[in-house]
Amino acid sequence: METSTLHINAQRYQGNFEALSRIGATPEGGVHRPAFSPDHLAARAWFREKIQAAGLEFYMDSAGNHSGILASEQPNARTLLLGSHLDSVPNGGRFDGALGVLAALEVLQTIQDAGLALPVHLEAIDFSDEEGTLIGLLGSSAVAGNLAPEKFKNPRGGRQAFLDGLARADLSEEGFLQAARTPENLVGYLELHIEQGERLLQAGAAIGVVTSIVGLASYRLTFTGRADHAGTTPMPKRLDAGQGASAFTLVARKLVLNEFSDCVVNIGKMEFLPGAFNIVPEQVTLALEYRAPDEATLQALETALLDQARHSAEEYGLGLQVEFLGMKESAQMDRITRNAVQIAAKKLNLEAMPLISYAGHDAQSMAVICPAGMIFIPSVGGASHSPREYSEWEDCIAGANVLLHSTLSLLANLEQSR
Amino acid sequence: METSTLHINAQRYQGNFEALSRIGATPEGGVHRPAFSPDHLAARAWFREKIQAAGLEFYMDSAGNHSGILASEQPNARTLLLGSHLDSVPNGGRFDGALGVLAALEVLQTIQDAGLALPVHLEAIDFSDEEGTLIGLLGSSAVAGNLAPEKFKNPRGGRQAFLDGLARADLSEEGFLQAARTPENLVGYLELHIEQGERLLQAGAAIGVVTSIVGLASYRLTFTGRADHAGTTPMPKRLDAGQGASAFTLVARKLVLNEFSDCVVNIGKMEFLPGAFNIVPEQVTLALEYRAPDEATLQALETALLDQARHSAEEYGLGLQVEFLGMKESAQMDRITRNAVQIAAKKLNLEAMPLISYAGHDAQSMAVICPAGMIFIPSVGGASHSPREYSEWEDCIAGANVLLHSTLSLLANLEQSR
Repeated sequence: METSTLHINAQRYQGNFEALSRIGATPEGGVHRPAFSPDHLAARAWFREKIQAAGLEFYMDSAGNHSGILASEQPNARTLLLGSHLDSVPNGGRFDGALGVLAALEVLQTIQDAGLALPVHLEAIDFSDEEGTLIGLLGSSAVAGNLAPEKFKNPRGGRQAFLDGLARADLSEEGFLQAARTPENLVGYLELHIEQGERLLQAGAAIGVVTSIVGLASYRLTFTGRADHAGTTPMPKRLDAGQGASAFTLVARKLVLNEFSDCVVNIGKMEFLPGAFNIVPEQVTLALEYRAPDEATLQALETALLDQARHSAEEYGLGLQVEFLGMKESAQMDRITRNAVQIAAKKLNLEAMPLISYAGHDAQSMAVICPAGMIFIPSVGGASHSPREYSEWEDCIAGANVLLHSTLSLLANLEQSR
Repeated sequence: METSTLHINAQRYQGNFEALSRIGATPEGGVHRPAFSPDHLAARAWFREKIQAAGLEFYMDSAGNHSGILASEQPNARTLLLGSHLDSVPNGGRFDGALGVLAALEVLQTIQDAGLALPVHLEAIDFSDEEGTLIGLLGSSAVAGNLAPEKFKNPRGGRQAFLDGLARADLSEEGFLQAARTPENLVGYLELHIEQGERLLQAGAAIGVVTSIVGLASYRLTFTGRADHAGTTPMPKRLDAGQGASAFTLVARKLVLNEFSDCVVNIGKMEFLPGAFNIVPEQVTLALEYRAPDEATLQALETALLDQARHSAEEYGLGLQVEFLGMKESAQMDRITRNAVQIAAKKLNLEAMPLISYAGHDAQSMAVICPAGMIFIPSVGGASHSPREYSEWEDCIAGANVLLHSTLSLLANLEQSR
């Protein structure tokens, strides 16, 4: 069958998007669907019904990931996963995650409608807790088999909130640790997502072909001086922790702008002790996070940032305490998958450009166990994790068609290589 | 009578200092006598006994200020006040305030012992709550008649702590407002105090002749940018409130060092909102305090600092909100009183140097209603408001002798001008 003129059913896709957007809708025009909250569970129930109504096979694994499957008739067929997540940040937007799940479902239905014979099973998956209300990338890490049990001890969202969420979703810690898929059974993972930035709009491109998802690391840096009377202590004699922390804050930004232009850095918080108007600050603790597109750059940036922190401390006669808080490794997107996206965009006459993703995504987990790729569509204004989040509907349709044709291209590759 | 060879009784003075230091003594070697705390009240009771045992007249005004009076026999005699305070900051040192009260008492007893005829009453006064555990400069402001009733509504130490303190000391708000002295009855005020800095030791001088007590002002400055995703928002697009606050923090220090060398500035605290590792700081609120030796300089420094804050905000595309929190006016010490201190030091063969006081003192209140002066003695290490506070005993004696001879010099002036 000739598939090059195949298009998704835009009306069905939009109807689904509007129905889903009503679940957990906020007065500001966004949605509130934190992982395993009642509205998140309602969205999942809605998704399950859609899967079953479409005549697809429904599957839920022990990590609570929900899937619709369009099965291949080949014996011992492997699986190509398409997906994203239905949970949102608190008071988030309608597009982040949800669009990717709906596009995946739509691709399966379109291929089902066309009656194509499949060399692999196609599975549209909604991953649990991508956003990190509880832990973050939870369902996809479980599927990838790289979820350490230690993660459960001190969840971002608090231990009790995590346990309450599991109870509401009827899930267990053991279940998450038993949800790993066998890599040999997976041919790949492909995810459509909004850009959450303005690079596509600025370049006039409709499609972003993600090359890598940044790795990130965070540190707590503590500058220590001496608490002194802010009147009687002469200025040159002060050991003011605020000066070192401020100098580092400025220089960290300049360093990244000048020498690490594909990286970002954030100092999100400073805490002053003793914190009085009339006492020279003895101690300033600073929250540092930075992101880089590959391991080597992340390492080089870390070295440069910590050197600068030591230099800033020294300049003001301060001590420096460096506390490593953790990191997420960067993920390289698969070359063949990227190529399939490029070809699909070209076929659909859409301008595509390569992009680094500066936010984390389930594709980051999946890249560990199979070839993974991501498709970005433009975000108007670049707003993200906010009710202001918005993408033009035309771009949402274009993204789903690129997902369709990328999938068809990957399926064609699989046919050829058999 | 020839008074030029008169000296205080060093043994009595030291015995008093040691006895007083035991009241509220802390394991670290300091004292804990916050205003109207049981130990502060015990120190006052001890002072009252000393006054009465010395055959001096005891007087307590309605602001709780305790005085010993060596009365003149002249009809309608006015009063020369010598004094300081017996309260301490929490976990403070033994010298701050206490030394000045004991030296004043010692001067009265020395003159009493010498049987000098007095042209004015001499009064050794211990002012209530100088340190501001409750309000600050409380007793001296009451005496000076510039205590606004509004001060009682929101005391630094909290309203309830203030009321509890008044109850323990058997004082009332009305009493404080009725304690003002008639300026015409006062010929002056003179206070001995530790320097709380290291300028005297560094200059090799034994005596500081205070020229002025700095004025100070405080502001809350709020830099406002935009909260954005710390991954997906490109560095050049961020409106990072932390950058503006940090730039201002560095430039404020440099401004004072380079252009206002007799002033000081402190940024004691910054508060970040929303304050997360992965969100660009939307808002940073900063606690600014600065001090200057006279009104014109305080005003010029304010203008320069606020200009810099606006400049720092503009540089990073931020909004700036400026909130004035209050000021204390600077106080110029009286020229004739300063001269009397200089002459006394010279007579005693002690090197004296002019100094600005960067801390507040009761002399600041008193300067409003009468000629006021202050004598500083060296602080070893410059530590203040700390158990590490220390002055050599030899310097404490020298200071008391300078207080004695400054008083004699002022008395001689009064005799001549009659």
